[in-house]
Amino acid sequence: MAKALITTVPFGDKNRLPLEMLESAGIQYLINPHNARLNENQLADLVTDFDVIIAGTEKITDKVMARASRLKLISRVGVGLDGVDLMAARTRGIRVSYTPEAPAPAVAELTLGLMISLLRSVHVANAQMHQGKWQRIFGRRLAEVTIGVIGVGRIGTRVLRRTRGFGTPRILVNDLIPNYELSREFKLEWVTKEQIYEQADIITLHLPLTRLTKNMIRREQLMSMKRDAMIINVARGGIISEPDLAEVMKSGHLSGAAIDVFEHEPYSGPLAEIDRCLLTAHMGSMSVDCRTRMEIEATDEAVRFLTGKALASEVPEVEYEVQSQGL
Amino acid sequence: MAKALITTVPFGDKNRLPLEMLESAGIQYLINPHNARLNENQLADLVTDFDVIIAGTEKITDKVMARASRLKLISRVGVGLDGVDLMAARTRGIRVSYTPEAPAPAVAELTLGLMISLLRSVHVANAQMHQGKWQRIFGRRLAEVTIGVIGVGRIGTRVLRRTRGFGTPRILVNDLIPNYELSREFKLEWVTKEQIYEQADIITLHLPLTRLTKNMIRREQLMSMKRDAMIINVARGGIISEPDLAEVMKSGHLSGAAIDVFEHEPYSGPLAEIDRCLLTAHMGSMSVDCRTRMEIEATDEAVRFLTGKALASEVPEVEYEVQSQGL
Repeated sequence: MAKALITTVPFGDKNRLPLEMLESAGIQYLINPHNARLNENQLADLVTDFDVIIAGTEKITDKVMARASRLKLISRVGVGLDGVDLMAARTRGIRVSYTPEAPAPAVAELTLGLMISLLRSVHVANAQMHQGKWQRIFGRRLAEVTIGVIGVGRIGTRVLRRTRGFGTPRILVNDLIPNYELSREFKLEWVTKEQIYEQADIITLHLPLTRLTKNMIRREQLMSMKRDAMIINVARGGIISEPDLAEVMKSGHLSGAAIDVFEHEPYSGPLAEIDRCLLTAHMGSMSVDCRTRMEIEATDEAVRFLTGKALASEVPEVEYEVQSQGL
Repeated sequence: MAKALITTVPFGDKNRLPLEMLESAGIQYLINPHNARLNENQLADLVTDFDVIIAGTEKITDKVMARASRLKLISRVGVGLDGVDLMAARTRGIRVSYTPEAPAPAVAELTLGLMISLLRSVHVANAQMHQGKWQRIFGRRLAEVTIGVIGVGRIGTRVLRRTRGFGTPRILVNDLIPNYELSREFKLEWVTKEQIYEQADIITLHLPLTRLTKNMIRREQLMSMKRDAMIINVARGGIISEPDLAEVMKSGHLSGAAIDVFEHEPYSGPLAEIDRCLLTAHMGSMSVDCRTRMEIEATDEAVRFLTGKALASEVPEVEYEVQSQGL
């Protein structure tokens, strides 16, 4: 009997359909019994007997795959592939699918909410009010600032779309390959990352975690930002150096940061000591509709594969190239 | 020498221009020495010797005016007139101006930010993360909910404009007099307040405080809302009964509330004990640009009046009717 290991949690929580899809296809499944992101050893111990992993952001290394003698498909619930050693998977004949479109609307909307919260110090005021302190804090509107978007793919583009109607006068964008098509839809300035660091008032990252983006923003980059700049990371933990961000903010630099993703999750660390650092628990894609769509699409891939049908959303060659070349 | 009492604080803080306008017109001024919203007695004690009040949201009652024998103009920094006894002012020959347009963009933008924060439990997650707790909380997108807007004047209309691009499928609106012109610009359903209470997932208020709206939302109205509904008040304290809101939320009803305005400010009270209640310190208009514009416009009225020019933004007759008839 075909068996699927579901590592991402929660799963089937708000909508049981993905579990029913597995059940009606006669596929046995196990949901991650640790109920938290698995480390390499935990996953290696669990994975031995499964044909498919319906996977989250945990690391699926060559060592893990070596223990998974039956494994033939990794179906990612979500878009980031930084956890999956794609080359090892290819060598072992393990195919990889993902759900690249599904999380984007939820991540983009949260980004806008975080921008406004940072600009208006909503998180700081809320903490103060709950402590009985009343302080009317000045903020800025999106119409008063320069936004910098690093990475304008599926999510970054949707962020741009949602800033419409807020009247932002200047939007700086950067990507590996500028997509000048976007300039027809939006008034953008294609600039270097360094120009974004130096000129933007609020910077948001919508990049995959790769060798090139790992620790892309360290002390040097943070210090090159305006003293009252703000930065948002809803992309992947590790793109901003967490110790550097904490140190720089504790020194008084930057007026705010919103961090949803962390190098090690669950996160605990010095960012939690900084009031103007707005922290959320990897909730970018956690809207009921987007999460349900992600789970259904990833489960559908598992069912298609295990019932002999063609995969619908296999990871394209470019993702292998990005990972192997460390782009 | 002409003298102006500035009661609203902070004033001239981010931009000194309003103070310079007074200085270069040879107008003496005093900024509220209590540095907090004045009560009736404090204001009555202060006001005796001034020609103009550049006013905040404090109560300017007949008793206050009786002490202000020189007072000839109240120039409100902002739009709400619930603090000013308009009939008493008229009887005493005191004119009243306000700045109705200036705060609207900042209030509308904050409203959008509060909507997304509530829908995604950003405030709850942030508090948990700062306490070392990791919980990935499910939320909803604006595209998954029905929005209810009560009051679609200057601010409500701007809220509608900013929800564009978020794909909200159903927007319910209510106002004293439906403005069907708006239905050309937006897909709206004009309904009763009761229908909004019962059907909306997220309800936002953009109303003045009048006899009719005072305590408009009490226990009965709150309990008629969906169990997981959310409510936002960035309009005026007192429109929602604070004790009823606290009691209803403590009983488990409503999944969130965002309250920026309070019956007594600075606020301290039971709402601060409720984690899913997002609280801010009357910061709706507190963007640097909007606040500066409000201060400049209100100061300009004072200068115009004291230098013998016509007022540019005197409160229109309809506001007197609204207040005298308790609409």
